[in-house]
This record gives sequence, C-alpha cells and structure tokens, in this order.
Amino acid sequence: MTVQQACEYLRKQDDILILCHQSPDGDTLGSGFGLYYALRAVGKRARVACSDPVPPQFDFLLPEQMPDFTPQFVTAVDVADTQLLGSALSCWADKVDLCIDHHPSNRGYAKHTLLRAGAAATAEIMIEVIRGMGVEPDRTIADCIYTGLCTDTGCFQYSNVTSHTLRIAADMVDLGASAYRINRRMFGIKSKARIAMEREVLDSLIYAMEGKIAVIAVTKDMLDRTGAKESELDGLSSIPREIEGVQVGITLREKPDGFKISLRTVEKVDASKICAVFGGGGHARAAGCFIPGTLEQCRDKILQAAQVACEEAGL
Amino acid sequence: MTVQQACEYLRKQDDILILCHQSPDGDTLGSGFGLYYALRAVGKRARVACSDPVPPQFDFLLPEQMPDFTPQFVTAVDVADTQLLGSALSCWADKVDLCIDHHPSNRGYAKHTLLRAGAAATAEIMIEVIRGMGVEPDRTIADCIYTGLCTDTGCFQYSNVTSHTLRIAADMVDLGASAYRINRRMFGIKSKARIAMEREVLDSLIYAMEGKIAVIAVTKDMLDRTGAKESELDGLSSIPREIEGVQVGITLREKPDGFKISLRTVEKVDASKICAVFGGGGHARAAGCFIPGTLEQCRDKILQAAQVACEEAGL
Repeated sequence: MTVQQACEYLRKQDDILILCHQSPDGDTLGSGFGLYYALRAVGKRARVACSDPVPPQFDFLLPEQMPDFTPQFVTAVDVADTQLLGSALSCWADKVDLCIDHHPSNRGYAKHTLLRAGAAATAEIMIEVIRGMGVEPDRTIADCIYTGLCTDTGCFQYSNVTSHTLRIAADMVDLGASAYRINRRMFGIKSKARIAMEREVLDSLIYAMEGKIAVIAVTKDMLDRTGAKESELDGLSSIPREIEGVQVGITLREKPDGFKISLRTVEKVDASKICAVFGGGGHARAAGCFIPGTLEQCRDKILQAAQVACEEAGL
Repeated sequence: MTVQQACEYLRKQDDILILCHQSPDGDTLGSGFGLYYALRAVGKRARVACSDPVPPQFDFLLPEQMPDFTPQFVTAVDVADTQLLGSALSCWADKVDLCIDHHPSNRGYAKHTLLRAGAAATAEIMIEVIRGMGVEPDRTIADCIYTGLCTDTGCFQYSNVTSHTLRIAADMVDLGASAYRINRRMFGIKSKARIAMEREVLDSLIYAMEGKIAVIAVTKDMLDRTGAKESELDGLSSIPREIEGVQVGITLREKPDGFKISLRTVEKVDASKICAVFGGGGHARAAGCFIPGTLEQCRDKILQAAQVACEEAGL
C-alpha cells in the first residue's frame, strides 16, 4: 500500500485501535501516539494499546485520557510480527486491518501493509501519513515523531540515518518539538541501577588474545545487587565491540542452568560459526547460543571457540 | 563581518595560513580543513596549523601533503581567544586577519571577525563561507563539515542544535559525507584506557543526600593504572549529572597539592555559590574551584558545602 492509499483508507474509518509492540520503544510509541493525535485532530475516536506498560521516560507522549470504545478498525505500528503484540494484545493478531512499519522482516500479517524498509524509523513514514490525512502537525505530534526518529537511530548515529531522516527531524524542530528535552530523556539520563550495572559489567570485563576478544557478563547476582530491570540493560551488550581493537565482543547473560551468549564480530571472524559449535546460530557479524554451566565454565568454552576462530581468520 | 564580506575578503588573498585551537576537536579541525580544501579548489595555497598533534580519530581529514609557504594571510577558525592558539602558534596571536567562530565569548582579537554565536558549530558557518566562495562542496569537504557538526553537538543531542544544523547535516550526507563512519569514529569506539577509566570513575562514585548529590573522582593513580591520556577523559565529568534524580554532580580531578572541582547543577541549586565558598566561581549551573588536601578531605569539604546549598534550596 502507498502512503496515499493508507491515508484514504484511514480517513474512511472511525473507532480506531492503534497497536504497539511489546517492550515498547520510542518508535512504536512515538508513531502510535503521533497517529492517535492526528486521528483526534480530524475528529475520530482512537486509542493506543500496548501489552506492556509505557516506560516512564515516554510518559510525556501520553494523552490525559483515551476514549473507550469497541474498535471498528485495527492498525499496528512498528510491529513486524503478530508475536510482538504480546499476550495482552494477541487477540487482535488476525484482525489487523492496516500495518505501518519499516522492518524488512515484516511478516505481512495485516490485511494491508504500508511498509518502507528503507526508513530509519516507522515515525519517518508516519509523518507522511499524518500530513497525507490533511493534518498539519502541531507541537505534540512533532514531539511524537521526533521521539521515534531519535530513538531508532541512537540520536542520528546509526547507519540507517539518511538525509531524509535528518530533514524530517529538522521539520519537527521547526514545528516545536522539544528535541533537547527529548534527547536528555532518551540518552542523557541514566537510572542509578543502570549506572550500577555499568559498573558491574565493566568490573566483569576480560580481554583475550591481546585485546582482540572482549568478554562481559551479566549475572543474576549483579541484577540482585543493583536492582536493575530488564529495560535498564539496553545497550550493555554492545560495550565489548565498542572497544578499540576488539574483533570479537562477547556478552554472557545468566539464565537458569547456564548462560545465553551474544557474540558480535567487527570483520573477518564469522560469529555464526563460533556459536554453531554450541548449537546456536545467527549471522556473520551477530550470533548467539546457550551454554550450560557456571560463569567460569561458559566463559572458558566460548573464549576457546572464539580464539580458534580468530586464529583461523589469521588474526 | 558578514559571510559575503568574509568570502570576498578571502577571495582576494593567497598563501593562507589556517589556525586551529590547541587540544583540537572536530569543529576546529573540520572547519579548518573544510576551508583548506575549498581554498585549494579555487587554486589558492593554504595550510592548516595547530599547536597540538591531530588526534588519530581525525586523521581521515588530513590531506596527503600540505604546501609550505610564507603566509600572506592568517585566518583562525573556532578560536575564541588567542590564548587558545597554544604556544607553538602564539607568534600569530596579533597577526590574525580573519577569525571565523561561533563562541559568544570570542574576544574580537582578529582584524576582522565573522562571528555567529547562535551557530551550533563553526562548521555551520564555514559551509556558507565555502559556498560563498563559489565552491561546490565535494565529499571531502562534506566529511569535514559533518565532523564539525556532529562533534560539537554530541551527535545532534545538545541544546545548541537547531533545525538549520540538522538541514546542513542532511546536505552533507547528500554530498557524500560518510556520516555513519564518522559517527562510529567519534562516538562508537572507545580506547581500552578510556574503558578502564570509566570503570575506575564508576568505582569512585559516591552518593549523598539520598542520591541528590553524586561525586566522582579522577586521580593520578587512576591515570597511572589505566594509562589514559588527557584526550581520553572527555565527558567523564558529565557522568554524575546524567544520573536520574541527581541535582548536584561533582567531579574531583587530582592536581598537585589538591583537587580541581567541577560542579554541575540541574536546577534550583546555585553552583557558583557553592564554589565561591572555596574561592572559585562560574555560573548558576556550572562552576569550579580548587581545594587543597587529600581526596577524602576535599570530597568531605565540597560535599558539606553542597549539602548546605541543597538544604537552603529546599531539596
């Protein structure tokens, strides 16, 4: 479906339920609430739903109150697969009329799908939909769209950013988006538990092969000590591969009876081959596996396999 | 001076020396080399000079070779004060013909100054100068300008970013700037010594007043243990105030005979009043002072003063 078709389709509907994905991030919420405010602006009833509570850093996106109604039309935003709706919304899995998404992996589960895989964020598509419905975005919508853009791009840092992404961000700033305030909330403020976890994780850091391999661990003990929640662990696993000279970055995450391993490689070394040794898999640059045992046992095993792979790659 | 006047002025010159500030950052180097490549494109001789060596992450900005000549014209970029030229370039302090800068604190030391205090980076002004000279920026110039923009804005995160900043960044991407590669170099990769310093600093973290005050320390011992250089300490002092709920963030930096204190406050508490107790000063949100003594002595003193200020502010 094109943007224009999606707009025409939406304009004909009312009592619209907007579904976000579970463990909601800034893009699914920003796009969802952006659409919500736009639909309200053209006099429609709408409601945003998510299986999980909205994390506190996004509470500025929330309207004071959302109307209650029996949905006549269901749209999903930034949801690549119905499994990502989560248990509370799984009842809508085969009833999605329109899906607006940017994930290349979108399963095409909806009756109609507006998919643009080249977009850095669903918010990048959503602003076109909003304008296509004849809505001139106000400051509130601008905040929503900006939130989607900045969170899905690591504040315009990732490889998915195009000049189009940056220009939409500029437009949102002109429309009154509180870019700096949002950036501070998304990237500038860390909880005490998160800071404590960073310390724990850095304490666990071990190098091998003259710094070509870096390993960190996230254990149950650390989580108990710091009180960190799942949502406060985002990005910790990227620490090893952000270190200069590291070719293989490994993160061990404690699970019952063993450790879940995520492995990232910079070049040359095939991550999926290392993980295949333990029955896991993935891609050349990112792969995972599970190894039963204690931290020391698991670390030794994955380190040994990584060293063999580095040597085979001539490092 | 206006951009147009600066362009006309530059167009009349040849054998141009471009001065960057000491401890060079991405903006002084990006703006300096951007101007260098533009001057070369219009057939002029030019050379970039800096008192300190160019840090390795910026080596992609460097031309293979710069011509040697006796300067007929001297321009300074992103240099607010001649003291910032550093010792090796101090001989040019009273010979600067044109200064292009965005610092509100610019001392007006040059014969002519193109100052735009509202610009997020000098690079934002430089691209106008380059175009004003009739140069269509190529990929190399786009890399230079993008580097200046992204480094002076924390990758478009800070409060100095305007829609104009984002649109220039978009233009640079369209002109072929390797934005992602540059972002990785500037923000994505950390040296092993830097990672070790982050660990040390987090180990030193102390809270007071139920988490309203956070203190970290950077000691000589830490630098010795980690081997971190001055340029690898950037941003460490912002850790305390990035912690949720912290109203006063304090960094102690060991000096001979005592500690240099940087103090940042979020709101309400006046940082300059706290530092004034120890003969220091600054602004309401950022101030500094020096306290003689050991780490424990200095920390106790500044903590006590900060607590008094918090209580007075009703926190």
